[in-house]
Amino acid sequence: MEKIFKELNNLKDKDFSFSKGNILGSMCTQPHPIAKKAYNNFLETNLGDPELFPGTKEIESKLINYLLNLLNAPRTSTCLIGSGGTESNINAIWYMKNISGKKEIIVPDSAHFSFEKIRSLMDIDIITIALDKNFVMDISRVGKKISKKTAGIVGIAGSTELGTIDPIQELSDICYDENIFLHIDAAFGGFVIPFMKGIGYDLPEFDFKLKGVSSISIDPHKMGCSAIPLGVLVVRNKKWLENISVDTTYISSKKQAGILATRSGGPVAAAYAVIEYFGEEGYKKIVKRCINNTKFLMKEINALGLELVTKPILNVLGISLKDPDKVAKELTKLGWKVNKMDRLSAIRIVLMPHVTKKRLQNFIPDLKKVCIKLGEI
Amino acid sequence: MEKIFKELNNLKDKDFSFSKGNILGSMCTQPHPIAKKAYNNFLETNLGDPELFPGTKEIESKLINYLLNLLNAPRTSTCLIGSGGTESNINAIWYMKNISGKKEIIVPDSAHFSFEKIRSLMDIDIITIALDKNFVMDISRVGKKISKKTAGIVGIAGSTELGTIDPIQELSDICYDENIFLHIDAAFGGFVIPFMKGIGYDLPEFDFKLKGVSSISIDPHKMGCSAIPLGVLVVRNKKWLENISVDTTYISSKKQAGILATRSGGPVAAAYAVIEYFGEEGYKKIVKRCINNTKFLMKEINALGLELVTKPILNVLGISLKDPDKVAKELTKLGWKVNKMDRLSAIRIVLMPHVTKKRLQNFIPDLKKVCIKLGEI
Repeated sequence: MEKIFKELNNLKDKDFSFSKGNILGSMCTQPHPIAKKAYNNFLETNLGDPELFPGTKEIESKLINYLLNLLNAPRTSTCLIGSGGTESNINAIWYMKNISGKKEIIVPDSAHFSFEKIRSLMDIDIITIALDKNFVMDISRVGKKISKKTAGIVGIAGSTELGTIDPIQELSDICYDENIFLHIDAAFGGFVIPFMKGIGYDLPEFDFKLKGVSSISIDPHKMGCSAIPLGVLVVRNKKWLENISVDTTYISSKKQAGILATRSGGPVAAAYAVIEYFGEEGYKKIVKRCINNTKFLMKEINALGLELVTKPILNVLGISLKDPDKVAKELTKLGWKVNKMDRLSAIRIVLMPHVTKKRLQNFIPDLKKVCIKLGEI
Repeated sequence: MEKIFKELNNLKDKDFSFSKGNILGSMCTQPHPIAKKAYNNFLETNLGDPELFPGTKEIESKLINYLLNLLNAPRTSTCLIGSGGTESNINAIWYMKNISGKKEIIVPDSAHFSFEKIRSLMDIDIITIALDKNFVMDISRVGKKISKKTAGIVGIAGSTELGTIDPIQELSDICYDENIFLHIDAAFGGFVIPFMKGIGYDLPEFDFKLKGVSSISIDPHKMGCSAIPLGVLVVRNKKWLENISVDTTYISSKKQAGILATRSGGPVAAAYAVIEYFGEEGYKKIVKRCINNTKFLMKEINALGLELVTKPILNVLGISLKDPDKVAKELTKLGWKVNKMDRLSAIRIVLMPHVTKKRLQNFIPDLKKVCIKLGEI
C-alpha cells in the first residue's frame, strides 16, 4: 500500500495544481478544505438511487433551495444535478428538443464547445450568431434567424473565453414574445454575477427575474469553490424534466431525468457545506478579491505594453498576442499554465480564488521575460 | 464549521449505507479505504484539461492499460473514461451513429434503462429483442431484425436485473458477418466474469477475443470496488473516438471525445490504487466470496420455500414474489434495502463485497418474517 501511494504521489508531483497556484487559466479551483472533508464523508453515497440515501437527498434539497433562491427562480422551478456545465447544457437542449419537437437552436459564436458536442450527439442544427464589438451576441442579428424550426436560444452569462455577458434582457424579451425557450449558460458567471451585484457592481440581469429565461446552468465546482464534478441545471418549470425522464424500474426512484444515473452525493454535500460556511458575505468577499486581482492584473498588463482583448466584465481576462501558442509554451517552461485562445489570438487568465495577488506578482515578471524574448513587447 | 458537520452527520445517519451493510440491492459498494484515500488526494485534479495534470494523466494511462489487458483488447484499442455505465452506453451509441450514419439499434429486452435515455436524447430507434427461457436475448430473433438501417447491436454481460449474459459469441459472429457494430454492456460483469473464469467457472467469452465485439462498457465503481463516478468505454479502434470528438480551443487538449468535459482525476486515481492493491489474486478472492455468498443465499431462499426467477450466473439473484413492492417496503421498515423489479414480479439482491455472509444470516430471518406476514410463503 505504501508503494502504491509513493507512486501516486510521485506522479502527482508532475502536475500543475491549484494549490501550488501555478494554474492561471482554468475555471476550476482548489476545493475548499470543508468541501474536501464533506466530499470524503459522503463519497460512498449514490444519489442516483435516492431512497437508499434519504439523508443525503435532504442535503441535495437544501442545496437546490439555495440555488433556486440565488437565481430568483419561481416556485415552479427545480434543479437537475449533474457533473458539470457540459452535461447541464446537454440536458437543457434535450428538454427544449423534446418539448418543442424541434431540432434547431440559436447560440452566440462564443458558446462553449459543449454545443459542438450537442450538435454531434443529438443531431441538433446550430445557428451561430456573430459577436458585436463587445464580444457578446449581436442582438440585432438574432430576430431574423428565428423560424418555425427554432426550439430555443442560448445566451451566456460569463463566457468561457472572456467572461462576457450576452444581452440577456433583450434575449428574454425576444424569447418570451416568440414563445421559444431561452437557456442561459451561467456555469461560470452564476457564482460571480449575483455577488458582484451584491457589492455594488452594475451588471445586467441574467436570471429568472427575466420572464423569458427558461433555464440556467450554474457550476458550484467553478466559482462556487466546491469540488468537481458538480454542475446544476435550474429549470423554470419542474414539469419540463418529465420530458427528459425515463422509467427506472429497478432502482428506488420511479423516474430519472437527465444523463447521469449513478452519481455520488459527495460533491453535493461538499457544495452544501461550502455554501453554508461562506454564506452570502463569504462569497462577496471572495468575488471582491477576484475582481480586485483582475483590476490589478489589467494595470500590470497595460504597464507591460500588452493589450487586452476587451475590458473584463468578470474575473476573466484575455491578453492579445501575436503568437499565444508560443507564449503559453514558454510560460509552461517557467511553471505557469495559461490557456491559449487561438481564434482570438490571445491567452486567457481566470482570476480564480487560488490566483492570489502574490502569485500574480510572481507571474508578471515571468510574463514580461517571455514576451520580450518572443518579441511580443 | 462544527455546526455544519453536525448537520451533515445527522442527515447521513438517515441513510442506508454500504458500510452499515443494509443495502442489499445495489450494484455499487463501499469504496475500499485505499480508493477513498487516493480519491481524496486527487480530488482537485481535472482530467478534462489534461496538460495541466500530466502526472494524473499518467495514472489514467496505467488504468487504461490495465483495462485493455483485462478485456483482451487489441493494440488498436483505447478507453474513454466517463462517469458510469449510462454515459459509456451513450458514448457507444454515439460513435455507432456517427460512423454508420444510421439511427437504429437492436437491444435485448433486458437492456439497462440508459437505452431509453438514448432513445429520448438522441432520437435513436430501438428494436427490442425478447428474452428466451434463460432470460437472455433470444438469438433466433436477431437476424431478421437487421436491416440497412441498423447501426449496431447491444449485448449484455451481466444484466442489471438478473446478472445474465447474452449469447455474445453468436452476436459477435452475426455482427462481424453483417459488418455492423456490437457494443457489450459489461458495466457490472466486466469486473466479475474474468475473475470467475480465473477461479474455474465455465463462462462464455464476452470480450475483445471475439472479433465482432466493437466496444465494452465496464465500471470500476461497481465490482471494481472503487468509488463513484467511474465508468469506462473500451473501444476496439481508437480512431472511432474521433467521430465523437469536438475541438476544444481553450483547454490544453486539442480534441475531446465523449460527453464529460471537466472531470476529476480522483476516481481515476482511486481505481488505479485499488487495482494495484488487489491485483488479479485479490479480485479473484473477492469474486469467489461473492459467488459463494450467492450460493449460500440461493439455498436459504429455497429453504424458505421461495423461488428464484432463474439460476444466478453471476452474483445477482432475483426472488420471485407475488407482491415485490410490499415485500420491499416491509423490509425497508426492518432496515434492509432490496430492489424491486416490477416487470419480473421479483426483488433483486446483488451479492456485492459489502454483503457478507454474516449480514445475510441477519437478513434471512427478517425476509422470512416479512414473507410469512404477507402470505408469500
